[in-house]
Amino acid sequence: MNKHRYTLTISCPDRAGIIAAVTGFIAQHGGFIVEASYHTDLETQRFFMRQEILADSLPFDANEFRRRFAQLSGEFGMVWQLSDSARKKRLVILVSRQDHCLNDLLHRWRNGELLVDIPCVISNHEDLRSFVEWHGIPFIRVDMADKAAAFATIGALFEQHQGDTLVLARFMQILPADFCQRYAGRVINIHHSFLPSFAGARPYHQAYHRGVKLIGATCHYVTDELDAGPIIEQDTVRVDHGDTVDDLVRYGRDIEKTVLARGLRYHIEDRVLICGNKTIVFR
Amino acid sequence: MNKHRYTLTISCPDRAGIIAAVTGFIAQHGGFIVEASYHTDLETQRFFMRQEILADSLPFDANEFRRRFAQLSGEFGMVWQLSDSARKKRLVILVSRQDHCLNDLLHRWRNGELLVDIPCVISNHEDLRSFVEWHGIPFIRVDMADKAAAFATIGALFEQHQGDTLVLARFMQILPADFCQRYAGRVINIHHSFLPSFAGARPYHQAYHRGVKLIGATCHYVTDELDAGPIIEQDTVRVDHGDTVDDLVRYGRDIEKTVLARGLRYHIEDRVLICGNKTIVFR
Amino acid sequence: MNKHRYTLTISCPDRAGIIAAVTGFIAQHGGFIVEASYHTDLETQRFFMRQEILADSLPFDANEFRRRFAQLSGEFGMVWQLSDSARKKRLVILVSRQDHCLNDLLHRWRNGELLVDIPCVISNHEDLRSFVEWHGIPFIRVDMADKAAAFATIGALFEQHQGDTLVLARFMQILPADFCQRYAGRVINIHHSFLPSFAGARPYHQAYHRGVKLIGATCHYVTDELDAGPIIEQDTVRVDHGDTVDDLVRYGRDIEKTVLARGLRYHIEDRVLICGNKTIVFR
Amino acid sequence: MNKHRYTLTISCPDRAGIIAAVTGFIAQHGGFIVEASYHTDLETQRFFMRQEILADSLPFDANEFRRRFAQLSGEFGMVWQLSDSARKKRLVILVSRQDHCLNDLLHRWRNGELLVDIPCVISNHEDLRSFVEWHGIPFIRVDMADKAAAFATIGALFEQHQGDTLVLARFMQILPADFCQRYAGRVINIHHSFLPSFAGARPYHQAYHRGVKLIGATCHYVTDELDAGPIIEQDTVRVDHGDTVDDLVRYGRDIEKTVLARGLRYHIEDRVLICGNKTIVFR
Repeated sequence: MNKHRYTLTISCPDRAGIIAAVTGFIAQHGGFIVEASYHTDLETQRFFMRQEILADSLPFDANEFRRRFAQLSGEFGMVWQLSDSARKKRLVILVSRQDHCLNDLLHRWRNGELLVDIPCVISNHEDLRSFVEWHGIPFIRVDMADKAAAFATIGALFEQHQGDTLVLARFMQILPADFCQRYAGRVINIHHSFLPSFAGARPYHQAYHRGVKLIGATCHYVTDELDAGPIIEQDTVRVDHGDTVDDLVRYGRDIEKTVLARGLRYHIEDRVLICGNKTIVFR
Repeated sequence: MNKHRYTLTISCPDRAGIIAAVTGFIAQHGGFIVEASYHTDLETQRFFMRQEILADSLPFDANEFRRRFAQLSGEFGMVWQLSDSARKKRLVILVSRQDHCLNDLLHRWRNGELLVDIPCVISNHEDLRSFVEWHGIPFIRVDMADKAAAFATIGALFEQHQGDTLVLARFMQILPADFCQRYAGRVINIHHSFLPSFAGARPYHQAYHRGVKLIGATCHYVTDELDAGPIIEQDTVRVDHGDTVDDLVRYGRDIEKTVLARGLRYHIEDRVLICGNKTIVFR
Repeated sequence: MNKHRYTLTISCPDRAGIIAAVTGFIAQHGGFIVEASYHTDLETQRFFMRQEILADSLPFDANEFRRRFAQLSGEFGMVWQLSDSARKKRLVILVSRQDHCLNDLLHRWRNGELLVDIPCVISNHEDLRSFVEWHGIPFIRVDMADKAAAFATIGALFEQHQGDTLVLARFMQILPADFCQRYAGRVINIHHSFLPSFAGARPYHQAYHRGVKLIGATCHYVTDELDAGPIIEQDTVRVDHGDTVDDLVRYGRDIEKTVLARGLRYHIEDRVLICGNKTIVFR
Repeated sequence: MNKHRYTLTISCPDRAGIIAAVTGFIAQHGGFIVEASYHTDLETQRFFMRQEILADSLPFDANEFRRRFAQLSGEFGMVWQLSDSARKKRLVILVSRQDHCLNDLLHRWRNGELLVDIPCVISNHEDLRSFVEWHGIPFIRVDMADKAAAFATIGALFEQHQGDTLVLARFMQILPADFCQRYAGRVINIHHSFLPSFAGARPYHQAYHRGVKLIGATCHYVTDELDAGPIIEQDTVRVDHGDTVDDLVRYGRDIEKTVLARGLRYHIEDRVLICGNKTIVFR
């Protein structure tokens, strides 16, 4: 389960022989593949792959792997990346006042299910300080009165803590466009509707007034267009005429938690590859 | 299961004592209630109820029930209706070329699950004639070249066959506004998306290009605003990056069939009450 | 939402006129019913009902309601109970070392979703003391070396803290038969399989070896037959050949949490009526 | 979608270099892989793979592929098979009186979703003759009075029609052990419960009496132990206390149909590999 592994993710123009070339390279060094996934996007004719390799089956380390693989990758025009399971990803969490997603993520972290380091939690409110600090995680309050300054601070904190991924765990603030662009593919949001239905504010109220029979939640990468970034994961739950907006909010919390947890896990495990405004998720 | 029953559906302004008055009226005549459902809509403060009563437990027939109940209903300002299970509803089905919903409905009809009479199936194509006629049901082709004339013909056929409900089983034609208004609450459509996402044409293509992780289907009453009428039933199914548009269409057929069958069943059993642009569904 | 309410639950032999008699009694005192549910069990011919009444619409308090209702209830041979929303139920939680259900319940409690008092959490291990005490809830360790003595202590603690309901939130110990009988209908367990499949020990291992394509969780009342009591709530989640036992355990935690939370909520809101070894759940 | 393809399925003892060897063989002849899936069973340390290759990208036909691949497969101790999409599988269907699965399969067949030839439908009753024959498919009645003789006839018919797969579409008869053994991995059944719960007769009655909150269906390979063969696909649907056995039967029909259709599709597309009493399903 938790053996030392390298995860190699690749995208390149599709053609015959890619899998053979990559797996041939690995086999030539005795590498043992434990998980392998492939996909061709029909519209762009781009090929995507993900391989997990037992680190101890190879005679060299991750850096040497990267050096040797560079030549092969050049021949195929690959965009690629090698992750080392020995180096945990660093996750910075942004929250506001609602704590159901935060509570869920921190529980998964403390029971070892979410294998990341969490250098800090950032919030625009004080409410959740005690809960975060009980975990031994620094809690940093950022004042939102001046939004530009606030996001400059958040960006600086993210850099300073060497964050890999920024999660908006019901942060309820719209990020500036330049912030979204700078961290493209690294900022993950949970939206409390089944997108593209009910983007923007108060989605449960919108759902209630439309009279839908299921509500949903969507985990997606943040882009500079609100609630329109590449979708990683979604789910729905049944509601009926007897449910008030408060009931929808309550049911919604449960799917928000699980959808965010699943989407984030896929991202952390390098299972998500972005293709235009869509994602490939190698589950 | 199939005992002779009356189904009484009521809506009126909410106040104390409505249930007592209605069930008192029934009890006073020895009536045996086998199913009872209630709901108050918080926005309109309107009360909705549905009761199934064993017909043989009452000393009079449906017409006499209606006569006697009229006085009580007047006191409470009730809009109400009494259905008699001895009189099957009459269902007219409109289809185009795709037959998955038709095949499903006719199977449920011939195995006794869908308790209706089907006086005819109307189509703008000849393709499904043989299949419909094998069931002993008349198949009527209507030419769509002149849409106004075509819908005049469809309306006339519906009247002439004494149709109660008109089902668009993937009919793929937009109904004229006046037709929608004349038969408000009596025309049921199956739309191949999880509304309000992807209304209008080619919803599976829209879903594919947005990269959603679930697709859906919606059974709703037809109004003069396209795909915006009161929703009766919806469901979703998981898809992933590996699924082509053809795959979405294939998965979609399965949820279209079951969502339409469930929604139609609720309607036929008088379980659906319309409240503005929403429905109460007493399952 | 949180208005002062009485919840009246009743079961009695079925006959005509029960709803009329009960709602007539309520209406006669001006009582306003906000939710009403009915069911007849066909095998036992027993009738079950649940009504929520606005307390302030009645001219007397809960005790006077009980006094006056006693005569009517006698005529129909009713087993009945009136709960007052002003008196929160008292919930005692038993845990072992796994904390996912506990974490979930305490979060729902501290955000006001689970409207109970929690006088204490009891465990056979020290692991979760700090987490429970952070909530300001007493944590009591009970040694399991002598099981009879341990359960005598647990029973005494439950009584002393005036517990209404005892929840086994992954307690992993089999309760003595006499304990189960004494608290029949008051002890709720979450079992980590879709019962009746995989009762007893290590259900995820059993599921893995059988090669099922979905796994589940079951919330049920504890009886003296292991994992065989009346089922309150269940759910399933899809797994596949790629999932290890550890993966099943991980997926399972998520459904255990939600199934327990839903089942417990139904119980706390007096929505669950026991009928033989089955439950009626008025959602 | 329907391009000419070869599907290569392999199982062998796990070791490093298998993927490289197989994809290297394909690449060396210019073969274009359009879908590739891999799995290692941890208990048996056996490796399983499935590849779809565009037939026209190879310079030889299926038989030549088989000849050339034999040497490589020998080195790795592979059990393997190459299917050619140009040769449709031949499906023989066994039914009794209930027609919901048959109706569903024949609809998928006539709209081109189920890409098989159906040389005949065999039944122990006459009821479904007219429906089957309307499709232009021979309908053969086999008398069950003498079970041994009946299954000898069924086996002979299956051979004579060169059947690849035999589907029990609610056949309701227990197959003799020797029949199960002779056609191991080729006979598919739909059982109307979520196995291993409620194996054997009248599963909906069993489910009703146990008071489960979900019911299910299971598509599995038939072995000589009743309802205990390798599971291909399962699903569940929610029920509640208000549902009678007849309601469970009705809900059940819908999941039986979809579970059988999905499981059968996986089998027909060579997506199912058997590993002991479990299946690997490369969806």
